[in-house]
Order: sequence, then structure tokens, then C-alpha cells
Amino acid sequence: MGSTWGKRLKISIYGESHGAAIGVVIDGLPSGVAIDEAQVVKEMQRRAPGTQAGSTPRKEPDLPTILSGIYQGKTTGTPLAVEILNTNQHSSDYEGFVTTPRPGHADYTSRLRYKMNNDPRGSGHFSGRLTAPILFAGAIAKQVLKAKTGTEIYGHIIRIGKIAAESWEEAETPVVPAEGAFPQENESLAARMKEEIDAARAETDSVGGIVEVMATGFPGGIGSPMWDTVESSFAQLAFGVPAVKGVSFGSGFAVAERRGSVNNDHLSFDGDKLRMTTNHGGGFEGGISNGMPILAQVAFKPTPSIAKEQDTVNLETKENVKIEIPGRHDACIVPRALPVVEGCLALALLDCLMGKGEYGV
Amino acid sequence: MGSTWGKRLKISIYGESHGAAIGVVIDGLPSGVAIDEAQVVKEMQRRAPGTQAGSTPRKEPDLPTILSGIYQGKTTGTPLAVEILNTNQHSSDYEGFVTTPRPGHADYTSRLRYKMNNDPRGSGHFSGRLTAPILFAGAIAKQVLKAKTGTEIYGHIIRIGKIAAESWEEAETPVVPAEGAFPQENESLAARMKEEIDAARAETDSVGGIVEVMATGFPGGIGSPMWDTVESSFAQLAFGVPAVKGVSFGSGFAVAERRGSVNNDHLSFDGDKLRMTTNHGGGFEGGISNGMPILAQVAFKPTPSIAKEQDTVNLETKENVKIEIPGRHDACIVPRALPVVEGCLALALLDCLMGKGEYGV
Amino acid sequence: MGSTWGKRLKISIYGESHGAAIGVVIDGLPSGVAIDEAQVVKEMQRRAPGTQAGSTPRKEPDLPTILSGIYQGKTTGTPLAVEILNTNQHSSDYEGFVTTPRPGHADYTSRLRYKMNNDPRGSGHFSGRLTAPILFAGAIAKQVLKAKTGTEIYGHIIRIGKIAAESWEEAETPVVPAEGAFPQENESLAARMKEEIDAARAETDSVGGIVEVMATGFPGGIGSPMWDTVESSFAQLAFGVPAVKGVSFGSGFAVAERRGSVNNDHLSFDGDKLRMTTNHGGGFEGGISNGMPILAQVAFKPTPSIAKEQDTVNLETKENVKIEIPGRHDACIVPRALPVVEGCLALALLDCLMGKGEYGV
Amino acid sequence: MGSTWGKRLKISIYGESHGAAIGVVIDGLPSGVAIDEAQVVKEMQRRAPGTQAGSTPRKEPDLPTILSGIYQGKTTGTPLAVEILNTNQHSSDYEGFVTTPRPGHADYTSRLRYKMNNDPRGSGHFSGRLTAPILFAGAIAKQVLKAKTGTEIYGHIIRIGKIAAESWEEAETPVVPAEGAFPQENESLAARMKEEIDAARAETDSVGGIVEVMATGFPGGIGSPMWDTVESSFAQLAFGVPAVKGVSFGSGFAVAERRGSVNNDHLSFDGDKLRMTTNHGGGFEGGISNGMPILAQVAFKPTPSIAKEQDTVNLETKENVKIEIPGRHDACIVPRALPVVEGCLALALLDCLMGKGEYGV
Repeated sequence: MGSTWGKRLKISIYGESHGAAIGVVIDGLPSGVAIDEAQVVKEMQRRAPGTQAGSTPRKEPDLPTILSGIYQGKTTGTPLAVEILNTNQHSSDYEGFVTTPRPGHADYTSRLRYKMNNDPRGSGHFSGRLTAPILFAGAIAKQVLKAKTGTEIYGHIIRIGKIAAESWEEAETPVVPAEGAFPQENESLAARMKEEIDAARAETDSVGGIVEVMATGFPGGIGSPMWDTVESSFAQLAFGVPAVKGVSFGSGFAVAERRGSVNNDHLSFDGDKLRMTTNHGGGFEGGISNGMPILAQVAFKPTPSIAKEQDTVNLETKENVKIEIPGRHDACIVPRALPVVEGCLALALLDCLMGKGEYGV
Repeated sequence: MGSTWGKRLKISIYGESHGAAIGVVIDGLPSGVAIDEAQVVKEMQRRAPGTQAGSTPRKEPDLPTILSGIYQGKTTGTPLAVEILNTNQHSSDYEGFVTTPRPGHADYTSRLRYKMNNDPRGSGHFSGRLTAPILFAGAIAKQVLKAKTGTEIYGHIIRIGKIAAESWEEAETPVVPAEGAFPQENESLAARMKEEIDAARAETDSVGGIVEVMATGFPGGIGSPMWDTVESSFAQLAFGVPAVKGVSFGSGFAVAERRGSVNNDHLSFDGDKLRMTTNHGGGFEGGISNGMPILAQVAFKPTPSIAKEQDTVNLETKENVKIEIPGRHDACIVPRALPVVEGCLALALLDCLMGKGEYGV
Repeated sequence: MGSTWGKRLKISIYGESHGAAIGVVIDGLPSGVAIDEAQVVKEMQRRAPGTQAGSTPRKEPDLPTILSGIYQGKTTGTPLAVEILNTNQHSSDYEGFVTTPRPGHADYTSRLRYKMNNDPRGSGHFSGRLTAPILFAGAIAKQVLKAKTGTEIYGHIIRIGKIAAESWEEAETPVVPAEGAFPQENESLAARMKEEIDAARAETDSVGGIVEVMATGFPGGIGSPMWDTVESSFAQLAFGVPAVKGVSFGSGFAVAERRGSVNNDHLSFDGDKLRMTTNHGGGFEGGISNGMPILAQVAFKPTPSIAKEQDTVNLETKENVKIEIPGRHDACIVPRALPVVEGCLALALLDCLMGKGEYGV
Repeated sequence: MGSTWGKRLKISIYGESHGAAIGVVIDGLPSGVAIDEAQVVKEMQRRAPGTQAGSTPRKEPDLPTILSGIYQGKTTGTPLAVEILNTNQHSSDYEGFVTTPRPGHADYTSRLRYKMNNDPRGSGHFSGRLTAPILFAGAIAKQVLKAKTGTEIYGHIIRIGKIAAESWEEAETPVVPAEGAFPQENESLAARMKEEIDAARAETDSVGGIVEVMATGFPGGIGSPMWDTVESSFAQLAFGVPAVKGVSFGSGFAVAERRGSVNNDHLSFDGDKLRMTTNHGGGFEGGISNGMPILAQVAFKPTPSIAKEQDTVNLETKENVKIEIPGRHDACIVPRALPVVEGCLALALLDCLMGKGEYGV
């Protein structure tokens, strides 16, 4: 049951990179929400290969076909299923990795787990390609959230390798990167981040990064501690995205260095409107939303597929060997991962929001 | 359903700080595991107030009474319930906070969520006291894990405010802090961390920190991506612990600064035994355990209860006011939180482990 | 995770018959509902031994102690925990059954399942006594349902052994048995049912029966097919009550004998009010409530504990042997089970109701 | 989240009758089980229209296309997705039912639930056609169960209208109806059942029935009371199949008429092999399997779609009106439903079986 997530809104992801199709069933959406499919496709193109700095030259059109759950342009309230056909596959690239696992990949662990029965082609169910249906579900969730509450979701990159940018911690409404541009609003930093990726690529290497996502307009009072909260749900979801190694909210790990007198978000009336004077908590106290922008950071490791020679083993001969991974790889997955993380936030927010019941929860 | 966690091993936490009792029901334990209750109590005493540097002088004996699920010293396989009676309560300390919410606390958000019906005394269900039953469940899980797989769990503090210590990232078996001592194995750093806490207390302030936990001996091949994994389950659980703002694994957020050639964990045969030459992944690839030590970090914000004057509001009069929080508070929660985080890791590991089926999952 | 039930409203039952206590944690209740504890106790006394025709002369006061979740007389919205202390136990009655299993009991199957580690005293977690916390949760759910929707729940016995009574299938508001009387509104049938029980007892035997429960005032449009429905949830819950062997709705198994032209419930306007002219469907079409009374039947097998000599085996010697079960047993569990089934209906209705979201599910 | 079922084995059903496709994602299968797709198709043909006595002349090829989860003929252990394209749709047949609901259908209740947003064509997600993906999942579960434990699943019809046949209650291995024949092993009764269906059809009416399913070879000791049991899981699942109004196990509702001395299943050694001398419990005591055949009955109401004139309402004009339902309908759904119920049993058994852990649950 590993690829199923959600409490009220359930998503069930399927597919292998080089199988017939990948897709997702989304169960639990409210009925009657108009869905703009063109907007969903636009979101998915942000993740598509070849459209982002640092991304692989592979072309995956990633066009989603909706099979159910939308009728006359609106959600039916019954399950929404989508499929994305797989094309443009070069399965022969991947054959040896069952015996000679790639460092940093699931080749070895999936062999332990599935006893050599899982589909190894293109990393199978472990492929980054499986983030396309997560993103699809997230793009639907974004539209539902916006329709129901006016919530908007934004994202940017705050680190690529050694190049760091400012968090939106202080912002109530963020300055957003231009559409289609590298997703960092400071153009000078954006240029340096791209250089960092180019430098990694030039050395047949890869580089990691951190994305930050923000939701504005999300209502206060949502979430049920201890574990039916946006924080727990988003973290659970985000750690299912390949290469994620850290999740934080608000000021994140920096809170550990602070005094309480500095870190506490104070309350203040601005006329009739109650707000926090800072947002170190990232929109929560005690697991419940407080009406401030929701703010989260997600750390990605560098893409493990690199052409540089690396050490590994031959599991049949039990010898230590060298490996060079040929093929088309992203030097940095972070720009393509950003819309996926935004989608994860939308899904976590919507799942919690749906817990607010007409009968008084 | 906020205070219930788990897929196969379910824990259901209950209680308010100043109610009759707090406790937990643990459902799904394997039968026939001998439980050392004295060891459980010892674990709980690590969390008890007044026993740790920086902790409040309140005395809570925290003695757990097991009501079911253990027979003749062993787990029955049916639910294990425990209760911890509440004593030594000063409810009057908390009365005003419904109207004048404390910064950094759930006073305001719980009011939004429960419409003034939740028990505000001692922060009610939001009290840090509710980590006692989590810890109890974790202490049971530790013993079951050890009995079934030999897995051992360790923890230490790697940051208090400005004082940082080394991660166990490089260690296969960690150098562990002495029992009963401040939980940092480097005595000089331990002393400086205590000073950091003392300095905060002297200024009627508080300070945050980071704990790191490690599990050795956990089998490889455990976990089902995308979301039925130790990473997703631990993160979900840990973000339910009050004051947690970040969770990471292995090298954590530092992976974002690295090249793939540096970050990838290489495989190597050491005789017959396969291992990774580094452990930047913290024991996982693709969400499945790889046989290396499991390593995670959790960031805690500074305790929000401080005696210093702070800004807040009066929700009745809609005025901005000042607040000073009297009473007995921890200047730093981190030392007491450490065994709770260890317990969370034990619970996440055991829940995933129980998914390994006799019939071939 | 066997003793945990519910999607939005979670109940986690614990305890063994002769352990320290039994109880339940109810997670997910709405906040702010006034709870009449005296009414809850009254419900529980309907299940208590010695208070019903055919019941065992054992005295179990079954007084529940609420430990959390109620503050100033109202639900807090955080988990409600209750415990019922065990007293008046005669554990020695049960010792031999581990080796010589009682027919119709879980002695043998629990041995298979728990490998002799479960608590056998008083049947441990398998005891009918464990229906007390289910009933407690149901009694709370009844009050919440009534407060939120005006829904009332009724029950009666429609069969004891050979004596059958009329279903409430035709009733919009049922004629209810007098409080404290045998729960069958037809006094003549009630008398004959009691005779049926007395006759079984006189022969040191037992007898089965069928209970029927009804909810009036439950809103239409509740439930999400295929499986998040009152029917699926109630059936799942009811089959967890010891001795239940069948569950049906509306006309139940009788529908199998009918033509569609007879069985279909027709729609009709009665002034402005839409209703069905019959209620063969028991309040549902397609898994969604239709505003008619909810109607369900539950079949109970005769109590397996009888003093008559029976065949069984000695699991140590592998010989076939005879067994006579001494002790205090119910000749018929059905009257005491009735409030438990009513409670199950309340829980299933409330769990589904809570799925109706403020944001448009 | 209504169309998602399962604890360890999760199925997520999607689709509307006249949408692009219907299908299911099955998550949690063990890896490495060889799947005979031809056998799956054969199972699905048992449900296909036009192939059974009493069924509609519509032709739905119902050919499943597996999209993921099988590699080189074996389960991968990652999600198995299937889709069945919709063809041969006559959507105009259904248009008026949103305003003039058909008696016995979900037309009115789905309008309440989804506020006229659900797809009404061919009954949308409420169509009996949605049992095809349930059956597909069940057919996969059957093969996995057989591979892992040797369990075989059988089914027959024990009632059509007034014609009843014997239960398999007494059988350890059932006498099975001939493949392709009407599913009742007594040819004379089979003929009379067919006559009952023909008579209903001749009068433009329909008729209900009861199916019985049996599993042999299922291991004892499986299931965790109170609710993680085959009984609770099967009942939950079966009540999601359209037209089901009752579920029972073993002797079913007949136990209510019995004395304990008659109903109790006695234990006996037959050489070394322990068995029950009867199987009134249907393979369970206390919710745990006892090694006897698993036996369950499911009651189906007569198909609500009949051409006879019926009373209903016009929801727009608020008038009482008459309705005649044109189109192609089954006079009796029971023969086509039988393999679906067998599949439900396979799913419930497999889900519980997967709970038996390598680490000692």
C-alpha cells in the first residue's frame, strides 16, 4: 500500500517508467468544482524534461488523459483518474543495474525489497517520472483549494549548491519569479544558480538544492493535532518524492539557534484583523493553521545519476567494480521538482481542509 | 482523529495536562515479546521534568500503569493500554490565556479550531506533557524492535542555540553520551550547551536545538515507496511532537549544497558483507532501508513560554496588550525531547517492519 | 491494529476481561457537544449483567470513568478516553481452556493467532465484556448525533430462537418497548421470548436471536459509495461484536425472494416533503442515505458457553475429550447485546456524517 | 474517499459507466507471483453481460488492459493498474433520471450527495459496470491467494426468488456447478431458477437472489479481532457492491433460531488433524480463521430497472409522476454478481493474510 496517500483525499499512484502508462486515481474531491485542464497541463509542463535549466534533453510530452471524475468541466465528486502514456523509452540503458546497482539509486534496495521482481527499466516505479502523476493530483488540488478558499500557492528555489537566496519568511505576499523563467525572483541569483548547474553538468556531475513553497489565503483553525495536520501530512507526502532528504516549516532548522524571545511570533491587531508580526512558525501553532502564509522548505539531494566513474559492486560475482552511468540525466532536478512540491503542499492543505465538517469538527 | 497514528501499529493518544489522566492505546503489537517495565520507566524518567539540564522544577512522577496487553510479562498481541495519572497541577496559572493568547503557543489556534471548548488548563491536549505517552509507546517499540531484529536506538543533541556538535553521519556505531549525563558525548560541548541553556534561563528566555537519532541493526529491504516508508512515517510522527519545525535524514539539508559525486553513497563488499562506504542517505535509497544505520535529525524551536514581556492581543477587547508568562517553564525542551524522538524512530521502524509479511510482501 | 475502527471518528478499544481495566479512546468527536453522563451510564446499565432476562447473575457495575475529552460538560474535540475497572473476577474458572478449547469460543483460534501469549482469563480480549467500551462509545455517539441532527436511535428484538416478531420495516416512527422491560414492544411476544430463554436455561443450554435497530431523522445525502457508507461501516463494526453472524438492511435477506416491482421503494411528494412510500432499502440507495429511517438487523448465535456436555479436544495429548463449562453464563446474550448494536449504528452514522465537509464534499 | 478499500491491500476503483474508461489500482500485492491473464479474463467473462441467464443483451467486451505492476508475467510488488475502456454506450437512455429518479436507484440520493454534478449517464459511478474492476482485483487476489496458500474459492447461487437450494454448510469440498453452466450444482434447481428469472423477464420485472461463496485451504489463525478480520472486511467490501442488502457467515441468520448445544462447532482430532465436526461458524471463532472452509452468503435485491410502470416524482415540478424505464436490463443480476462476490472474498482473505508478519504478528 506504499503508493497510496491521504486521509480524506486519497491518491493512488501507479506505473513504471517504461511500462504502458503511469497515472493516479484521486478519490474524495468535492463535487462541482470547475477544472481548467489547460492550466493543469501548464503546471505539468513546468516539470517536463527539456523545459528547465539543467534538465535532461529527453522529451516526455507528459500529456494527461482524464478518464473519469470530470463531467461537463466540473468535478463529479467520484474518483478522478488520469493516465499518462509512456513513450520515448530506451530500456536497454538500464539493464545492467540489477546486478551492478547505481550508487544513490534504489537499484540495490528495491532488489532487497522485491526480490528482483520489480520492473528495473528506467528505474520502474522508482523513476522520477512518477512525480508526474503526483504533480497532476497537486495541480487539481490547487484549483480546488483556490475555488473553495482563495488559497494561492507559490514556489521558488532558495538554494542550488553553494548559491543561496532569501526565504519568503518575511513576506505576506511573495515576489514571484517570472513565469517560464528560472524560478528565483532575484535575477542575479537566478543566473548564478544556473551557472552552478551548468558547472556541474560540464563536469558530468550533478548538484542539489532547496525549494520553498508558500500558500497564502489559507484559513486559520485547520488541522487536528497531533498528526492530522498540514505539517505531518505535507512531510509524509514530500518524503515520498525521490531525492528529498529534509522538510521544514517557517524558519526551519534556524529555529534551533534562536532564543524564544526572538523566535516567538507575536500577535497583533491591525485594525480588526488579527495577524502575527512575524511568521517563524510558517503558518502554524500547535499543528493548527493560524491564518498566516503557510511556508515550507524541502531539501533535494543532487541527482544520483552521473556519468563520472563511481564505486559499486557486482552482486552476482560479489566483486567491487566501477560504474559510469551513460544516458540522459538531469544535472539538477530541483527546478523540475518545484511544481511537484507545490502540488504536495496543495494536496496536504486540501486533505486537512476537507476535515472541516459541516457538523462541527 | 488527530491523535491516532500508524498503519499496522496504531497508537491512540489521549489526555489533557490537567485532566484525570493521560495515556495511550497501542494496537497491533506482535504477541509474545517480553517487556521489561523497569526499562520503560527508566526511559520515561529521561523525559521527566526536573531531571534534565534546563528543565522546569515541576515534579511529575510520570509513572505509567499498564492496564492491558501484557500477560505474564509478555505482550499478548491485543491492545496495550497505559495510563499516567495527572497530579501536581496549578490550573490557575493558565486561565487568562484563552483571552490573551501566549505567543508561540496554540492558545489562539486551538480557540479557532475548537471554538473555546478545548481544555485550556496547562495547555490541555497541546501540553508537552502529552509526549509522555508517545515516549511510553516508543519505549515499548524499542524493546519489540530489539527482540525481533536486534535493532538498537541511540540519540544525542547536536545543537543548542549557537553551540553545534558533530553528526553521527560517519559512525556505524555511535559514541554514546554517558547515561544520566547531558546527552552530548563530547564533554566540552556538553558543558557549553548547558551554559547556553543557563544563559537563556538567566535572562528569563529559552533556546532551541537539534537532536539526532540513530538506529543500528535494522534490516535492509524494509519500506514500500512512495509513502509507506520509515522516512514518511517518522516525519509524520515527529511533526506531531510540540515545537518540532524540521526533520531530515542522513546528511539532511546539507545535501543541497553538494555535488552528486560527493553525495552518492557507494557500495562496497567488505568480505561477504555489503555496505555503503558513506551514509549520506541515512540508511535509505528510494524509501527502502539499505542495512546502514538509520539516521535522522529533528529541529526544535525554543520553548515559547518565557517570562520576558511579549506583545499579544486581548481577543475580547480587540486591543494589543503585553504579556509576561509566569510559572515554571523549561528554558530548553531539547534534552527532555530527545527520548521522545528516539521513541518516534522506534515506532516508525516497527510499523514499517510489521509490514514485512510471512506471505511474501 | 484489530481493535481500532473508524475513518473520521476513530475508536480504539483495549482491555482483557480479568486485567486491570477495559476502555476506549474516541478520537475525532466534534467539540462543544454537551454530554449527559447519567444518560451514558443508563445506556451501559442496559448491557450490564443481571439486569436483563436471560443474563448471567454476575454483577459488573460497569461504571465508566471519563479521563479526558470532556471539559465543563462538553466535548473538547480532543480524544475522549474512558476506563472501566475490572472487579469480581473468577479467573480460575478459565484456566483449562487453553488446553481444552471450548466449542464455539476463540480458545483454539486465539491460540493459533497469538501462540498462547494472549490472556486467557475470562476469555481475555475476546470476552463479551469488551462490548462495554463499544457501548460507551456508541452512547456518546448517540448524544452527538442527536445534538447535531436530531437523529434518534431505537432497537428491539425481532427473534429469540423460534419466536419471531415484526420488523419496523413499515414504521416511520417505531412503537418502542417500554424502558426497562424486555425489549420487544408486543408484550405477548415479549413473554414468549422470555419463556424461550428460560427454557434454554432450564436445560443448561442457550439460544440465539436477532435484533433490529432504527435511526430516525438522519439526513439524506450522507455516504460516499462504494465503501465509505453507513452500510459498509456498520457491517464492519457489527461483525466485530462477539457472536454476530449476519447483518442486513431494510428488508434484508427477504429481498432475495422478491420481484423488483414489489421491492423497489417508490418516491412520492407528500406536500413539499419527498419520501419513499416503502422502506425496503432501509434508508439507502446506492450507499447514500435517502432521508428515510435507517433500518438494520443483526443475527446473534446462541451463547457458546453452556453447561451441557460437549465434544472437544485436548491439544496437549491430542485426544478427543468431553467438556462441561461451569460458571455463570448468559442463556441468551441478545437482550444485553441490543444497546451495543444501537451504539454501533450511532457510531457508523456519526462517522459518515462527519465526512460532510464545510468545503463542499 | 469512498471508492478505496483495504488495510494492507488497497484497491482504488474509478470510472463512470459512459466515461472514457473504468479501472482499478491495486496497491500492496506481494511481488513475484505469476499471474495468468487468460484466467483473469475468463473470470471477467463470467460477469460480462449477455453471457449469463437473465442478463442484458448489451455487449461489453470488458477486456482489461494491465498498465503496470506486472513484469515478465509476475507481480512486481508495486501498484497493479488496469483499465477497461467503455464502448457501446447509449447515454440518451439516462438523461431524464436526474429530474425523474428511478425507484430503487441512486438517482435521487446521488443528487442529494453530489448536487447534480455527478455523471448521470448510465448511472455513472453507481453503475453495476463498476463491479468489473472489483472483479478484476478479485481475480488477481484469487491467484495470489492460491499461489501463497493453496486456497481455492468457489461460489454458487442458493436462491433465486422463491427457488432455494442447499448451502455448502456441510461440505468440506463443495460440489461445484459445471463451468459455463448456470451456477447451481443441482441441475433441476438450476433449471427452476432459470425459469424464475425467465418468468420475471416475461413480465418485464426482475427478481433477487442469494449467492454463497466458499474458500477452502485458507490457513487458521488469520485475523485480528475485533475489526481486522475476514468477516468485517468481507462485509465492508460486499456492501459496496450494488444491490447487496445482507451478508452472513456459516449458518447465517439461521443461528438465531438455534440452541447453543446444536450450533456450537465441536473440535475433534481426525488422526493428527484437528477439525470442527460442523462448520456453523463459517470458518471463524472470535474473528480468527479456524482452518475450516470459509463460508459466506450475500443477498441481492431484484434489479431496480424494470419496464413496468412505477411511481416516482418530478424533482423540478414537485409533482408525483409515473415512470417506465426503457432500455436493456438484467432481469436478475445474481448470476453475473457471483464472480464479483467470489472476488470480494478473495480480496478480504488476502488483505487479512498479508497482515501475518514475518516478525511475529
